[in-house]
Amino acid sequence: MISFARGVPAPDCLPVEELADCARAALERDGRSILLYGPGGGYGPLREHLAERHGVEPSRVLLTSGSLQGFVFLAEQLVEPGTRVLVEAPTYDRPLKILRRLGAEIVPLEMDDDGLVPEAVEEACDAGSQPAFLYTIPTFQNPSGRTLSLERRRRLAEVARERGLLVLEDDPYGLVRYEGEPLPSVFELAAGEQVAYASSFSKTVAPGLRVGWFVLPPKLAGEIEALATSTYISPPYPTQATILEFLRRGSFEPNLERVNGLLRERRDAMLDALARELPDDASFTRPDGGYFVWVDLPSGPRCDELLAQAEEAGVTFVKGTDFFPGGDGEGSLRLAFSFVSPEEIAEGVSVLGSLLRAAAPAAL
Amino acid sequence: MISFARGVPAPDCLPVEELADCARAALERDGRSILLYGPGGGYGPLREHLAERHGVEPSRVLLTSGSLQGFVFLAEQLVEPGTRVLVEAPTYDRPLKILRRLGAEIVPLEMDDDGLVPEAVEEACDAGSQPAFLYTIPTFQNPSGRTLSLERRRRLAEVARERGLLVLEDDPYGLVRYEGEPLPSVFELAAGEQVAYASSFSKTVAPGLRVGWFVLPPKLAGEIEALATSTYISPPYPTQATILEFLRRGSFEPNLERVNGLLRERRDAMLDALARELPDDASFTRPDGGYFVWVDLPSGPRCDELLAQAEEAGVTFVKGTDFFPGGDGEGSLRLAFSFVSPEEIAEGVSVLGSLLRAAAPAAL
Repeated sequence: MISFARGVPAPDCLPVEELADCARAALERDGRSILLYGPGGGYGPLREHLAERHGVEPSRVLLTSGSLQGFVFLAEQLVEPGTRVLVEAPTYDRPLKILRRLGAEIVPLEMDDDGLVPEAVEEACDAGSQPAFLYTIPTFQNPSGRTLSLERRRRLAEVARERGLLVLEDDPYGLVRYEGEPLPSVFELAAGEQVAYASSFSKTVAPGLRVGWFVLPPKLAGEIEALATSTYISPPYPTQATILEFLRRGSFEPNLERVNGLLRERRDAMLDALARELPDDASFTRPDGGYFVWVDLPSGPRCDELLAQAEEAGVTFVKGTDFFPGGDGEGSLRLAFSFVSPEEIAEGVSVLGSLLRAAAPAAL
Repeated sequence: MISFARGVPAPDCLPVEELADCARAALERDGRSILLYGPGGGYGPLREHLAERHGVEPSRVLLTSGSLQGFVFLAEQLVEPGTRVLVEAPTYDRPLKILRRLGAEIVPLEMDDDGLVPEAVEEACDAGSQPAFLYTIPTFQNPSGRTLSLERRRRLAEVARERGLLVLEDDPYGLVRYEGEPLPSVFELAAGEQVAYASSFSKTVAPGLRVGWFVLPPKLAGEIEALATSTYISPPYPTQATILEFLRRGSFEPNLERVNGLLRERRDAMLDALARELPDDASFTRPDGGYFVWVDLPSGPRCDELLAQAEEAGVTFVKGTDFFPGGDGEGSLRLAFSFVSPEEIAEGVSVLGSLLRAAAPAAL
């Protein structure tokens, strides 16, 4: 099976040998502390490192088992049945499932090629009770690959302040950039006010270490650290200490450069293949980074039908409908190019192209 | 501060060098798999190892970030506001907090020196709606140090079957035995029917690795694995693979023997000091293993008053009241002997003895 579904790095991206040595070194140096329990918010020296990077107190940085775990804590703290939560449409499917389980009223917001539309945030705030928060992935969004423009980032920071709206900026892909200039985060533009920031080392070092982090307003940070403590006492420090060792050795930057080079080839292979294989009325995003391309197929077929046919032909992807809180996305697909080789990408997209040509009405 | 509060192994108990080498070896051998995402239930080879030990299918074994995380999943799956849950009185305080947060109706059950009273389980079942489960720590209980007798284990397994009652047997301390013959688990006596089993490597290898496990009935195992996946995608495999490497090298048994030797000295120091220092009407448990001694002080003072005085004098413990769902335990203390040295134990108990003598009515 050629998987355009797995939003994970290819195994070639993983710095296996170096992480093995970092794990050993971290345990040898600090084992008598990191092999015991400790603060629920994570391994102190890594919290301090990230706090310095973000210009905040270490107590505002919480390390969690991947950033999804942090999202669960945040949602458990802020959401009760009926609580309104704003999300981009489309958005990452796992937070949608978590919000549904907690009984949130999920409010989808319009996006275009420049990302989330700030006016849609204001309109949604006006249309009902104060939302608990807005969940946004401004850079190389999962699933669309879109990036919020600088102007809109500024506007979103303003809207958050004006409305007293908590914005959760999820930024796992920001450093996974293949071209173009980095943009400031909404968190930076808002100087941390009303904006919480989440990221992880899953895309820049390795997902299996499960090290994500949240930068939160002070009060919320305290509440969520208490929730973390009462859920698992403390998170696994050895993997967090392994990451810090990797950072301290200066391995992060060269590894990221190598990984981005590998992924850029894959992105290029995906865009080339889509330009070659898709019908003329299809459109797709052209991300400068991240893992995903979003495909719209205005003349069909429905994404569930295409997925069934594709899987029979040995190719898989995720249906557009999984990323909308309502029933939208029927004519859309999310294609991840991160896990598959350039050759598999060409082959898999060629299969999709054949299926689309076979499904198309005999127009000519 | 001499801490009788910390229920953690002393740093001397931690096999630091060996775990550092196991972490390196596990990552070198299996890094391309354990540094990616995978099943939410944990690292496959360790699940298989534990499944073989327990005589069940690997899909029934779930690895979590310490067993408390598994308790949270189980409770989230089974408890709604008003759901009845049976607990021992006293019991481990963290599950009480979790059950309270979920709005459970917590039903405390009588214990005596032989542990939980099985008739109390039956009476509680008769006194209201069917409980979601009974939470019990049959061996070297936290906080009391008590162990359920063999006869009562058999009876509890019968009651579970007769009543269709799910029993969660939490067994972190079973292997931390200093003398006497091991008893079969309730899970074994019930042949896995109606009994879920939880344990962890926190007390036998190192708590900071955060590797606990649950053995669950098949349907519940599937539901909780789904909940784990939607909470953190997958748990950190590198620490789980480190444990498996430690097991495969044959390091587990000799390490456990060494650790139990260190802890036995501490237990002995605690019991000697208590016999020497406590007033005549005080009673305390004499556990054959585990971390805790439970002290009852029938003529006072109240545990909160004693704790305040003790902390001023440089000694801390946990108040008995923390371990009861209601207001009981005012005349009781939990003393952990695991973290402190034999010398600190003698000194700390001597401080408590002086405070108790000073607080006693001038009877003579």
